[in-house]
Amino acid sequence: MKQFSKKNIAIIGVGLIGGSFALRLHEKKLAHQLIGVEADEQHAQQALELELVDHICSLEEAIKEADVLLLTIPVNEICDLLPSILDQISGQQIVLDAGSTKEAITRSIKDHPNRKRFVPTHPMWGTEHRGPGAAVQTAFQSKSVVICDTADCDTDALEWVIHMYEKIGMQVLEMTAKEHDIHTAYISHISHITSFALANTVLAKEQEAKTIFDLASSGFESTVRLAKSNPGMWLPILLQNKDNITEVLDEHIKQLHAFRTAITGAESEQLLQLILKANQIKKILK
Amino acid sequence: MKQFSKKNIAIIGVGLIGGSFALRLHEKKLAHQLIGVEADEQHAQQALELELVDHICSLEEAIKEADVLLLTIPVNEICDLLPSILDQISGQQIVLDAGSTKEAITRSIKDHPNRKRFVPTHPMWGTEHRGPGAAVQTAFQSKSVVICDTADCDTDALEWVIHMYEKIGMQVLEMTAKEHDIHTAYISHISHITSFALANTVLAKEQEAKTIFDLASSGFESTVRLAKSNPGMWLPILLQNKDNITEVLDEHIKQLHAFRTAITGAESEQLLQLILKANQIKKILK
Repeated sequence: MKQFSKKNIAIIGVGLIGGSFALRLHEKKLAHQLIGVEADEQHAQQALELELVDHICSLEEAIKEADVLLLTIPVNEICDLLPSILDQISGQQIVLDAGSTKEAITRSIKDHPNRKRFVPTHPMWGTEHRGPGAAVQTAFQSKSVVICDTADCDTDALEWVIHMYEKIGMQVLEMTAKEHDIHTAYISHISHITSFALANTVLAKEQEAKTIFDLASSGFESTVRLAKSNPGMWLPILLQNKDNITEVLDEHIKQLHAFRTAITGAESEQLLQLILKANQIKKILK
Repeated sequence: MKQFSKKNIAIIGVGLIGGSFALRLHEKKLAHQLIGVEADEQHAQQALELELVDHICSLEEAIKEADVLLLTIPVNEICDLLPSILDQISGQQIVLDAGSTKEAITRSIKDHPNRKRFVPTHPMWGTEHRGPGAAVQTAFQSKSVVICDTADCDTDALEWVIHMYEKIGMQVLEMTAKEHDIHTAYISHISHITSFALANTVLAKEQEAKTIFDLASSGFESTVRLAKSNPGMWLPILLQNKDNITEVLDEHIKQLHAFRTAITGAESEQLLQLILKANQIKKILK
């Protein structure tokens, strides 16, 4: 079994995801030093108080100090920063991101001479909370991480990234950035849109907040939970993956119309078939 | 403070809801005897093995033995059975239901001479599982229960029902059956439809079940959880409340179209406003 030494790891963006990485990297003894880069001063202060990182510095300093640069910032900022980060790194440093889209990000550095030092990844974990205070010790555990376009990565960089994800308890899947963006539109992005839209549906009609609060059952809370999600993170995801998402939304609206037709027309048998079909999700999820 | 003696309580339908009531009624020492009525032989057997009820008997026998009859069967069966149950009870017995709709149920016994012995209730708790094996010890705790049209109930019946719900840890709200059905369309029924439709959206497109399984994040699981719900329970709820639900569905589809327009047109500011609006649900839910 290949041995990996501890590395100096810079976490660019010490929020929910970056902070959770910090906890896991520390626990699994993967980092020699954990360096934080955080534009929000309050979050930077909080990350230090919570001892998520050893110190906070500028991106330029982090690029000089770190063996690994982990980008846990919104996907539009990843696209903006990634080319200039790759400009500044050596041929030994490793860069990876944890963004929820992959096509726009890989496109942003497609022809960069240091392209092979970058490993595009997406750990399938998150919560509706934000900031370093929302970091979770058990984050990522037993979830999947997608690594994209592995043929475009240097072997040593890829091997360390896989090692890191396996150490923090994730199952590694490989696919192309294009495949990733189609699948996540269905499995993740649409859930956020239906939650946002559900919240807006209720807020549009239930004028009395107290009624919502009093009547909200656990079912409502679970379907609407994602509506609390951070717009700074989700706005760019939805825009970057807009073509796939539009297709999924059209299918989803079609499915809702099927329910509307069956319910409004009191088509009992048709409605039963729609529910039985939906029940099949049981076979797939635990 | 008024004292209430233990009662013989018959639970008509010992599934998820009835079984959970059994656990709570027993724990809170509310029942002298717990009698089960259960048409499904396997569930009846299981309810005895799990010691949810003291014995299982026919509905006719239960009506003879019980001080209180609690209907925890699908809402269409409540409408079917309730008139004949009220035919058979004395002026001392109490009947209540736990159905998720209230207008059709109260309409079914509107002019019955024993109408005042019936208390229409809806405890706002449930899970996507079914059967007595799914009964939960902590069910109902800290949730709300709606009691409808209280002016149509005898005071002694109403007082015992309120006492019982408070004992099992619920917050009692009163409203009309009509108000109940409008609010639950927004706060509960629509969540189930969006979950069913989301499951069908994913199942229609993700041909490989393994991809769904591998990529499903906690966000997806929480929005799609209700899609596992029991059609025997949910089909009649959706049909009985179809007018309110149709109105909510139309609003929801309108909200989804607003997201589609903003995403497809890359209208960043418009999309931000939609997400910020949805985020306001945070102020209402914890």
